[in-house]
Amino acid sequence: MSHTPLLDLIDTPPQLRALDKAQLPQLAAELRSFLLESVGKTGGHFASNLGAVELTVALHYVYDTPNDKLVWDVGHQSYPHKILTGRKNQMHTMRQYGGLAGFPKRSESAYDAFGVGHSSTSIGAALGMAVADKLACKSNRSVAIIGDGAMTAGQAFEALNCAGDMDVDLLVILNDNEMSISPNVGALPKYLASNVVRDMHGLLSTIKAQSSKVLDKLPGAMEIAQKVEHKIKSLASEADHVKQSLSLFENFGFDYTGPVDGHDVVQLVGVLKELRGKKGPQLLHVITKKGNGYKLAENDPVKYHAVANLPKDGMPSENKPAAVVKPTYTQVFGQWLCDQAAADSRLIAITPAMREGSGLVAFEQQFPDRYFDVGIAEQHAVTFAGGLACEGAKPVVAIYSTFLQRAYDQLVHDVALQNLPVMFAVDRAGIVGADGPTHAGLYDLSFLRCIPNMVIAAPSDENECRLLLSTCYRLDTPSVVRYPRGSGCGATVSDGLDTVAVGKGIIKRRGSRTAVIAFGSMVQPALQAAAALDATVADMRFVKPLDEELILELAQSHDYIVTAEENAEQGGAGSAVLEVLAKHGICKPVLLLGVADVVTEHGAADKLLDDLGLSAAAMRQRISTWQQSL
Amino acid sequence: MSHTPLLDLIDTPPQLRALDKAQLPQLAAELRSFLLESVGKTGGHFASNLGAVELTVALHYVYDTPNDKLVWDVGHQSYPHKILTGRKNQMHTMRQYGGLAGFPKRSESAYDAFGVGHSSTSIGAALGMAVADKLACKSNRSVAIIGDGAMTAGQAFEALNCAGDMDVDLLVILNDNEMSISPNVGALPKYLASNVVRDMHGLLSTIKAQSSKVLDKLPGAMEIAQKVEHKIKSLASEADHVKQSLSLFENFGFDYTGPVDGHDVVQLVGVLKELRGKKGPQLLHVITKKGNGYKLAENDPVKYHAVANLPKDGMPSENKPAAVVKPTYTQVFGQWLCDQAAADSRLIAITPAMREGSGLVAFEQQFPDRYFDVGIAEQHAVTFAGGLACEGAKPVVAIYSTFLQRAYDQLVHDVALQNLPVMFAVDRAGIVGADGPTHAGLYDLSFLRCIPNMVIAAPSDENECRLLLSTCYRLDTPSVVRYPRGSGCGATVSDGLDTVAVGKGIIKRRGSRTAVIAFGSMVQPALQAAAALDATVADMRFVKPLDEELILELAQSHDYIVTAEENAEQGGAGSAVLEVLAKHGICKPVLLLGVADVVTEHGAADKLLDDLGLSAAAMRQRISTWQQSL
Repeated sequence: MSHTPLLDLIDTPPQLRALDKAQLPQLAAELRSFLLESVGKTGGHFASNLGAVELTVALHYVYDTPNDKLVWDVGHQSYPHKILTGRKNQMHTMRQYGGLAGFPKRSESAYDAFGVGHSSTSIGAALGMAVADKLACKSNRSVAIIGDGAMTAGQAFEALNCAGDMDVDLLVILNDNEMSISPNVGALPKYLASNVVRDMHGLLSTIKAQSSKVLDKLPGAMEIAQKVEHKIKSLASEADHVKQSLSLFENFGFDYTGPVDGHDVVQLVGVLKELRGKKGPQLLHVITKKGNGYKLAENDPVKYHAVANLPKDGMPSENKPAAVVKPTYTQVFGQWLCDQAAADSRLIAITPAMREGSGLVAFEQQFPDRYFDVGIAEQHAVTFAGGLACEGAKPVVAIYSTFLQRAYDQLVHDVALQNLPVMFAVDRAGIVGADGPTHAGLYDLSFLRCIPNMVIAAPSDENECRLLLSTCYRLDTPSVVRYPRGSGCGATVSDGLDTVAVGKGIIKRRGSRTAVIAFGSMVQPALQAAAALDATVADMRFVKPLDEELILELAQSHDYIVTAEENAEQGGAGSAVLEVLAKHGICKPVLLLGVADVVTEHGAADKLLDDLGLSAAAMRQRISTWQQSL
Repeated sequence: MSHTPLLDLIDTPPQLRALDKAQLPQLAAELRSFLLESVGKTGGHFASNLGAVELTVALHYVYDTPNDKLVWDVGHQSYPHKILTGRKNQMHTMRQYGGLAGFPKRSESAYDAFGVGHSSTSIGAALGMAVADKLACKSNRSVAIIGDGAMTAGQAFEALNCAGDMDVDLLVILNDNEMSISPNVGALPKYLASNVVRDMHGLLSTIKAQSSKVLDKLPGAMEIAQKVEHKIKSLASEADHVKQSLSLFENFGFDYTGPVDGHDVVQLVGVLKELRGKKGPQLLHVITKKGNGYKLAENDPVKYHAVANLPKDGMPSENKPAAVVKPTYTQVFGQWLCDQAAADSRLIAITPAMREGSGLVAFEQQFPDRYFDVGIAEQHAVTFAGGLACEGAKPVVAIYSTFLQRAYDQLVHDVALQNLPVMFAVDRAGIVGADGPTHAGLYDLSFLRCIPNMVIAAPSDENECRLLLSTCYRLDTPSVVRYPRGSGCGATVSDGLDTVAVGKGIIKRRGSRTAVIAFGSMVQPALQAAAALDATVADMRFVKPLDEELILELAQSHDYIVTAEENAEQGGAGSAVLEVLAKHGICKPVLLLGVADVVTEHGAADKLLDDLGLSAAAMRQRISTWQQSL
């Protein structure tokens, strides 16, 4: 039986809602095909989107979006939502400069109720919407859709605890695919996976029904039977009572529904219709399969969490000889970590659920006892490291700059104020490209530089990265090595665990009149810009402590000082240079080159950096223009 | 029967452990008396310490401290611990300059295993210690002691989730007094309080026993009875199965023991001895009474959470006519909030469990529907506010500067990047005095200034505080009004909801040669210092946007520029002034006056500010010395 294609006819949810329920499986199938094709072309988050197709169709079918609010946690699973909400024809621009964002974004569509990117915010945000609407006497509904991985973050727990105690109509959908990006860790996923939870509703009903049948066969022992029945009922009621507290979510005051097959769109529509009419906080437990419908992604959802491009039918492509590529900073870190761990049994590595992204796959294999994936739990990751350091271990926390924002107070209190030797390997420091502003690491120099006892290093190439990691690891104080996403200039990385002097920079190029004081990833473009300007370039290596001697020498021997960093200009490394100059009473023209005070875009990192005036060409232009203006 | 006093003989835990178990109740009673007397004299956290007396005695009696690690969550309850660990004779110096810290502090004693101050870090820190010791093949034990209030913070959940999945020997003691500082909110405390949990163990045993008795009376219906018995057993076993998942903590993989009377020291010793020998993560649920043994504190533990001084026998003192005192900034905020809420029904106030400290008592009474205490859950508080703002509400998050560090990523993602109009009323910004470095708010200007879309105001007196609150509230962008602990200069606070121009400062004093660009709490001491120096003083009002025009005017008309702020010098407001001067190519000597890059002390705020060079006298001295050095 052939069907007229449906997806072509659907641009927005009102059109979807005009379909017959029986047509939804066909629509879901077409949506999945479309998704495979569009993500296959553009790349992007993949497996979680395939898992959310039916749920997305059912939600927009039942809920009156955009008046009703759908808050997608993290947003990796929001592509089907984007396709159904007027953006089907822009899907080919996904994550590209000027194109669709890879996450829900309020400025992109009225259907994107909340901008996301980091995990575990959806329940709190949807609760806020529900409360505001209730106070304004609106009848809108709010729905948070959250994965089981995101449930391990404390913030989700805080929101559940708060919502469960409120008289507010809120639906939380637990999209349970038994993994986040890496397979889940922790006790909660085990709990979710346990048969006790999944089978309890059915099991208890069955037992109650069967008990009653047994008693029906005892007409001659009515009195006793009644007593027994009473006892059974009391026991069953007790079991019911227990059952009420059974579910973790019911503990928090939510009504629990589920588990429900997240790929049966017709059943989902029925369940959601019922839930939409219910009062108070509701939790729907949906079981989905990450990568559903695409064989490679089903089998290896970690690999297919996000992809650059895909073989058409989900079948592996021929093994082509890989091009020789430069190692990424992540890989340089991963290799150093293994080498350092081999040399020092005190080293312990910690990741908040970012084994692959942070380059810890080899470390886990080689040092399983010293590898700790604590789940999506940045706060805990840092305090745990503080505890480890108290007992003489040497913890290395591998974390993205943007995720370190989640553990700021813990870094201050549990590490820095106590001066504990925890090292932070801060990846994705700077512009990150396609993931956009929620994943850019533009603030770490500003929020770390003000904290006492911190040492902050910013390597300018791959070999510097290894040197600075070895150097900071040896310190008895807290330290940060921050390096950008992707690869550097391709410097040869030495073996060994050599160190450099803490707080000392080096001159990379001697020129005249203009001195560029450059930090980390900006050293290479500064060198390129300097050639045409005949400028001196210093690679400062450390943002804190800053090499005051070198800065004074440069200030005294040059007419113009330029600073360059891949961080917000406000309070960043350039600002630190200004503080040093002021402290020593040196008055000299200084140009700060850093990221301006704006919310950055998504797109190719090179393009973004150029727009921000941080490419070699843009730097050269800015320096010339500035010098002419003085 | 009279006893020889015991506490006089006990300076350290080894002496305690030499006592007979039967002597412990007497020791606990003496410890409570000593505590009442010492805290009565010095002030300090009170009710929670009285509640923890027996638990502290039992822990040091059973555990081999300091080799075994006791991690006290928050640390409000650590005074009995300090008394028993060599600091009895220093208790009179509690929270005073150069004296004992109000919280555990690693540099103060080997018995203080982890420095604390903010809540909910104990489980993660103790877990880190347990893991490090296990890897180092040490047999030490680690114990986290955490209140039920602190359990509502997400970080505690993250740590439970992580620990419950680990093969590590860790004891978590839930010190359940059914309140944190304010009465607890949220579903979790309800859960803890519910009879279902507390009575379940006993109830299920009783039911099983009674079922069996009923069947004994049915000799003639053996076959059927056996079937029924089988069914009952199966049901009971099912109930047992359910029970295994019953406890929230058992859900996380902890073995649950309790609840136990936390004031029965002999029983506690028995339970702890047993638990010390057990493998894997253990949770002990202890019920205590906050303020136990002091009538006033038992009846009103919120009021007696912390005290300045106490009537001797816990009885109310005569009502003396209160001295006329200046309102605190907290009170100015509280009054403004009520007035603004009366004028605008969209206003919603949110506190993470700091109703009293943040001045929200009157607001809660007047606007109960618009008051949200979300528990100790700073992350959720901010994201919840973001959700509210999406739907047109005007949320005001009342939070201490130091606690805002807990919600930094949420402020960035869920408010600032989306440019949502959430206002943060940031109390305790600057030095806080007796609470010390964990509660000082010294970094907010640095960590906020780099975030796009933020407006940051710093009032210089009480009336300015009201003006800037009204001004920021009206904005369509995120904003922060940061003000210090305690009272200001005593400015008369106008009625009304007047506003001022955003990003504009004012000249407070016209002088010559030296211009002091002052922020917030530093405007008053700057004015005092300026009189002797004949300096100009500007009250900038806003740190962001900064009044560039005024800065340029001052720079052009003066020889020396001084900035003054109660924030870290690194990346703070002074640094922002340097950025403006650099941007406009102005080269001028600038002296930054702010908090130096050190971990500050505890003690009287005046003394600390003077030590930091931020009193009027110290400022004057520093400016003169600097000018002479140029």
